[in-house]
Amino acid sequence: MLNKSESLDLTFQALADSTRRSILARLSRGPISVSELARPLSMSLPAVMQHLTVLEDSGLVRSVKVGRVRTCRIEPKALSSAERWINQRRSEWHRHFDRLGEYLEMLNKDPGESHGNDD
Amino acid sequence: MLNKSESLDLTFQALADSTRRSILARLSRGPISVSELARPLSMSLPAVMQHLTVLEDSGLVRSVKVGRVRTCRIEPKALSSAERWINQRRSEWHRHFDRLGEYLEMLNKDPGESHGNDD
Repeated sequence: MLNKSESLDLTFQALADSTRRSILARLSRGPISVSELARPLSMSLPAVMQHLTVLEDSGLVRSVKVGRVRTCRIEPKALSSAERWINQRRSEWHRHFDRLGEYLEMLNKDPGESHGNDD
Repeated sequence: MLNKSESLDLTFQALADSTRRSILARLSRGPISVSELARPLSMSLPAVMQHLTVLEDSGLVRSVKVGRVRTCRIEPKALSSAERWINQRRSEWHRHFDRLGEYLEMLNKDPGESHGNDD
């Protein structure tokens, strides 16, 4: 069982490849078979399977074989974890700017007001 | 100049490491010097610099040297591109489910109503 950080490593690693991103883009429009998935890609089926293995290991994709057909679907949970991580950084960044804004506003205030100076 | 896809490759690649994510987490709370950044990390300064190079190459971090001090800050634009890519996949996925829902609803309708059968 992977911990949260290892899991994010695998998710971002899986996302760091344009072929894998195009597979995910296709699967986000609905589940399809491996052969349909491979058709528009200019690479061999084993190469596609290798990318699918990376995507499955990262938890971004699940597949199920019925008879001779393997159907893949996106697993939105892993995608959400990655999105949440980025989102948290953005929130912190905005909070930093808010604090900076408040600080600059304080500096711009009348010194008499901000320091209780009564002269 | 990198194209959008190559740029996303580098961004996700940079995010696929827990040390680099912890550097970004620190920088999202405000800019700091490389030595301050390295202090809580259990690794040599050259190792930290190597991670910073990956982060700078991906466009996620910018640094500026004034005198002997190099200060780093997060570059939210690259983070936003990654977030937007994930967000688009989630939207497509939700649209797929909405369409699926509509389809199932249509199947559940009274056949007379859905097929204009007037008997």
